[in-house]
Amino acid sequence: MNNSFSDLSRRSFITKSGFALSTAALGSALPIDSIYASSDKRRGQLGIALVGLGGYATQMLMPGFAQTKRCRLTGLVTGAPEKKIRYGKEFEIPDTHIYDYETFDRIADNPDIDIVYVVLPNSMHAEYTIRAAKAGKHVICEKPMCLSVEEAKAMISACHENNVTLNIGYRCQYEPHNLEIIRLAREKPFGGARYVQSELGFVIGDPSQWRLRRDYGGGALLDVGVYCMQAACYAIGEDPIAVYGQEFKTDPVKFGEVDETVAFQMEFPSGVISNSTTSFSLDAHRLYVNYQDANKHVEIQPNFNYGKYRGSIAGKPMEFPFINQQANHMDVVAQSIQEGNETTTTGDVGLRDMKIIEAIFQSIANGGVRIEIG
Amino acid sequence: MNNSFSDLSRRSFITKSGFALSTAALGSALPIDSIYASSDKRRGQLGIALVGLGGYATQMLMPGFAQTKRCRLTGLVTGAPEKKIRYGKEFEIPDTHIYDYETFDRIADNPDIDIVYVVLPNSMHAEYTIRAAKAGKHVICEKPMCLSVEEAKAMISACHENNVTLNIGYRCQYEPHNLEIIRLAREKPFGGARYVQSELGFVIGDPSQWRLRRDYGGGALLDVGVYCMQAACYAIGEDPIAVYGQEFKTDPVKFGEVDETVAFQMEFPSGVISNSTTSFSLDAHRLYVNYQDANKHVEIQPNFNYGKYRGSIAGKPMEFPFINQQANHMDVVAQSIQEGNETTTTGDVGLRDMKIIEAIFQSIANGGVRIEIG
Repeated sequence: MNNSFSDLSRRSFITKSGFALSTAALGSALPIDSIYASSDKRRGQLGIALVGLGGYATQMLMPGFAQTKRCRLTGLVTGAPEKKIRYGKEFEIPDTHIYDYETFDRIADNPDIDIVYVVLPNSMHAEYTIRAAKAGKHVICEKPMCLSVEEAKAMISACHENNVTLNIGYRCQYEPHNLEIIRLAREKPFGGARYVQSELGFVIGDPSQWRLRRDYGGGALLDVGVYCMQAACYAIGEDPIAVYGQEFKTDPVKFGEVDETVAFQMEFPSGVISNSTTSFSLDAHRLYVNYQDANKHVEIQPNFNYGKYRGSIAGKPMEFPFINQQANHMDVVAQSIQEGNETTTTGDVGLRDMKIIEAIFQSIANGGVRIEIG
Repeated sequence: MNNSFSDLSRRSFITKSGFALSTAALGSALPIDSIYASSDKRRGQLGIALVGLGGYATQMLMPGFAQTKRCRLTGLVTGAPEKKIRYGKEFEIPDTHIYDYETFDRIADNPDIDIVYVVLPNSMHAEYTIRAAKAGKHVICEKPMCLSVEEAKAMISACHENNVTLNIGYRCQYEPHNLEIIRLAREKPFGGARYVQSELGFVIGDPSQWRLRRDYGGGALLDVGVYCMQAACYAIGEDPIAVYGQEFKTDPVKFGEVDETVAFQMEFPSGVISNSTTSFSLDAHRLYVNYQDANKHVEIQPNFNYGKYRGSIAGKPMEFPFINQQANHMDVVAQSIQEGNETTTTGDVGLRDMKIIEAIFQSIANGGVRIEIG
């Protein structure tokens, strides 16, 4: 446990509106004062620092904080000066709580930051997760967890050694339709799953983006395929024992460094299988689960997206409200830290998925053969 | 061209109601009299003999004749005496037009039978297609065409040599929703297809049935997987150039001889891919086509079935009437024979599909590797 509640006794002289200027005047080398202590209403909330202010952080996570109950945005890490100014102002984040990649490790001294949320390009997930852990901060790391099983293990070790929790940004596990899928796997009202089909693809735009660069950890399988395998695993309630993978490429220029389209099939211990397609060049957003009670198959389409979901059970609509997945995710992580519980999206789950991803790439590299997951 | 119209000059003294008894009395070695010539309203219709009176023939094709305009049921081939009596009576088929597997080849002498529809277990398709061709009859052969590329080529040769047409029982190509898919591939109002996902599976019952026996040509891929590959091909409007296949088995007793579940992926010349799952142990009936105009994706679910279809384009319902696929299929085949046209479900299409099936099995036998289609 490492949260700001223990810092409530710290002296605080700063008003909400005047903070940014005054701390700027004091300079960041001085001890950091808590922006929490001044307001009782902030009690019970953990502070989150977003590391990397790209599209997902600014368009999805930042708005999510308007709905979080157990956490709030208390820090920013970015290399872009204009983002420091813009988002610091918008979210009333004092300069002392705004870091760049050089000063990142000083976050250790900031009592208002309990959780570091790593929203950097995939290749930087491992490094910043480990640095955050060493700074004594809990970590939420965006999916995919990292680029390899080896990195995943190092991230888990670092968090374990520093007594902080590690969660992966598997937002769909905090969305009501998918929570229902998880419940169906756990309670089995229709019997176990017999088959899962999951697809996630979109047509990627800007050819210069990091998702198309190998050194940044781009590619469809890592970026969006992970949702498909996640869904198959939680719909079945098991971890796969073997996979097959196939890669397809229509544009060797645009996708010169990374995979464009990957299909993969997973075998689970009970004999259930899944079949998935993921792509940066076609549109698909679907989860289909066939149960032993065949009349009760569930389909969610669109699934995996940021907006509304539409699902049906045996042809009848699933009636769930729209909720902000990102806010719910961050709140559940905060609650798990406060209450000492585990979420369903821990680093161990991320490690499992990295094993699956490595096996799929290994299958592809070997022409499509079956690869057992070690 | 080989139809009964040329036989209208044959002497006919038989009334509809008295025919069966009188010809039985005359004996089947005598020349066969036409049951057509007596009625002008039958002009313009070709006569079809069903070979093999199992469930599909009796429950799907026979009722279909109530709606055919260009063909009618004029012959039966079965080894079961009780079926001869039952269906002969029900459809007023004279004894002279009812054969068993010993007497089948005498069908050559029957002017009322223009088309032989082979509805036997898969392993018998090649033999009876070739025998029918040698008897000078056009052939409709149920899907899958046969068990191998070699058989398919022999069937095509036999039909070619005997100047008769060969059609495969790809009924879905005569169903309105799927006809729309074919139109979209041809006219490309949404651009070309970018991705096809097709699934067909059901939970097979009776463990003693021929579909579970290797020597009868059973197995999910041959029996129902062929619909999935058919759909991908006509949705894309191309023939695949390579495949991957994966086989999964949960019940090695029930499926000791044949494949239970197979997934397969196809690559098409334009770079479009498809991903399919077919099974005898899970339920799935779906065709999904993603087009270059991503907003216009089409989904038909259920698809591939005998009953109602439900489809949508960009989330809006496809409004097509329910029609009897089997009747429409037989009528289109009859029309093609009468007008000298080709259908979209010729033996050549069946041969292509046998090449795909062999390639999928070859991929499976080689651990899942990519197999180019020769």
